[in-house]
Amino acid sequence: MSKDYVIGIDLGGTKIYTAVVDLEGNIISEETVATNAAEGEQAVLNRILGTVETVLKNVDISNVKAIGIGSPGPLDVKNGIIVNSANLPFKNFNIVQPLKEKYKLPTFLDNDANVATLGEFMFGAGKGTENMVFVTASTGIGGGAVLNGKLYRGNTANALEIGHMTVMVDGPRCGCGNAGCAEALGSGTAIMKRGRDAASSNANTTLKNYSEVTSKEVFEEAAKGDRVSKEIVNTALSYLGIAVANIVNIFDPEKVVVGGGVTNAGQIVFDKIQEEVDNRCLKAISENCVIEKAVLGGKAGVLGAAALAIMEIK
Amino acid sequence: MSKDYVIGIDLGGTKIYTAVVDLEGNIISEETVATNAAEGEQAVLNRILGTVETVLKNVDISNVKAIGIGSPGPLDVKNGIIVNSANLPFKNFNIVQPLKEKYKLPTFLDNDANVATLGEFMFGAGKGTENMVFVTASTGIGGGAVLNGKLYRGNTANALEIGHMTVMVDGPRCGCGNAGCAEALGSGTAIMKRGRDAASSNANTTLKNYSEVTSKEVFEEAAKGDRVSKEIVNTALSYLGIAVANIVNIFDPEKVVVGGGVTNAGQIVFDKIQEEVDNRCLKAISENCVIEKAVLGGKAGVLGAAALAIMEIK
Repeated sequence: MSKDYVIGIDLGGTKIYTAVVDLEGNIISEETVATNAAEGEQAVLNRILGTVETVLKNVDISNVKAIGIGSPGPLDVKNGIIVNSANLPFKNFNIVQPLKEKYKLPTFLDNDANVATLGEFMFGAGKGTENMVFVTASTGIGGGAVLNGKLYRGNTANALEIGHMTVMVDGPRCGCGNAGCAEALGSGTAIMKRGRDAASSNANTTLKNYSEVTSKEVFEEAAKGDRVSKEIVNTALSYLGIAVANIVNIFDPEKVVVGGGVTNAGQIVFDKIQEEVDNRCLKAISENCVIEKAVLGGKAGVLGAAALAIMEIK
Repeated sequence: MSKDYVIGIDLGGTKIYTAVVDLEGNIISEETVATNAAEGEQAVLNRILGTVETVLKNVDISNVKAIGIGSPGPLDVKNGIIVNSANLPFKNFNIVQPLKEKYKLPTFLDNDANVATLGEFMFGAGKGTENMVFVTASTGIGGGAVLNGKLYRGNTANALEIGHMTVMVDGPRCGCGNAGCAEALGSGTAIMKRGRDAASSNANTTLKNYSEVTSKEVFEEAAKGDRVSKEIVNTALSYLGIAVANIVNIFDPEKVVVGGGVTNAGQIVFDKIQEEVDNRCLKAISENCVIEKAVLGGKAGVLGAAALAIMEIK
């Protein structure tokens, strides 16, 4: 029996993770290489092409139907261009063209968040839903949405800037320039900042035992019972929960899938989110909406890129 | 040349407004009658059927392709049922069935906000867009969205509960039970409440000249220069603007169409909304998004119901 495959390429600042994936999300062959962005545009492009060669070694190319690429943005998705990216050497670089030319396959590009959204939708926690929002909480807060069964990109392909929703009018300044963004209050960065402030303050906190506090230490000390760390974690997770609650009231989704580094702190994250959703959402909506942890983890990017390829050729 | 028509029925607590509408949104014939909800289910149903008879008088029924009904909710849209409605006599009442039976036409039901959204999208300020959000600010704050060219309803058909987005964590209590909802801060009701509070306080305000302050008086006194009224209006419109800004960051729409009683206060409403959008949205999104006043006014319901019918049979 012949089987259809796609290629997923997870292009990141640290590594390139490429795989041949079947339509059920099983990885058939894979390769991960360091990006080494400092070596420049052509070197990184060659490295990407090299991973594709490798993963295709034992696969009949005639079974491969499309290529999907996930990349940090901003991107010009329509034209397959990486406009700019802090951790990649590409500037206004058409990343789709060389792959298309070499393999004569339909090739698609989308950003990290959209690709992870599609991955969870097609192969992960969002499987079987029609309306799903993906929220990622790590250094920032971002997301994506599948609505009526299709990825929703918005007018300029920047939809789902969940982290820049105002949830506290005169709140702390966010990197985007606005005040009181969810990201400035509920992200891993917000937890780190508040942890460092506490460590260098007069407060009685075990955070003082660390030379450099990150969100990880704040979560750990909170779990061990440090009152100050607990307060920081609870407050930040409340804001993350408020952001999710707002998303639930706006999208009326079947499921919100939450991923990203912050969810490594475990059940407390989901308890807090659920609490805010229960308190703040219309019952008709929240009683029919499930908040769930993302399941793809480190494979979100590569499986998401494969999901993008599958979605686009369907 | 034969021409296709649809019937739009705007079912409200005060009046029933029914029209034959062509595919460009021109009203061919129309009738408005009082709802007289107190007379009960059967009487109101008969009155609806009567308006349809009237508007069809000079129209060839073979040119009529579908019927759309807009109604206050909650509804069971899929099954054509009005579950409940504060100002209508219908309880778990199938409003679609009797029309379908009598006219043998595909007949569709949706709520006020969705219908108004479709009306503005198809015939009004949102014409020509693919991604448009409609925000209505009157006693409450609500809305609807057309995404990728289609009405987005969500999982339980309750999407776009814009008014119940939390924008101030420990803000005033909202009718929904939550605290700090946009509706509790930026709606006509919020303006009225703050105006009444001011009128009965020690504040020096011309609002004291009224026996019963509504949002209209607050807007009027603000325009005349009353400092207290101005502060109330500015604060409320800021919150409405924040709600719109959040919507812009989340949906990345081409256009946000704003309607409802609050917009009768004129340009100040749009200036304030634009100010918050400029301050709070990512530039890539807001620079490509237009905030515009709804144009259908009192015809939003009937033309929206017609638009629903057109959209569903397309």
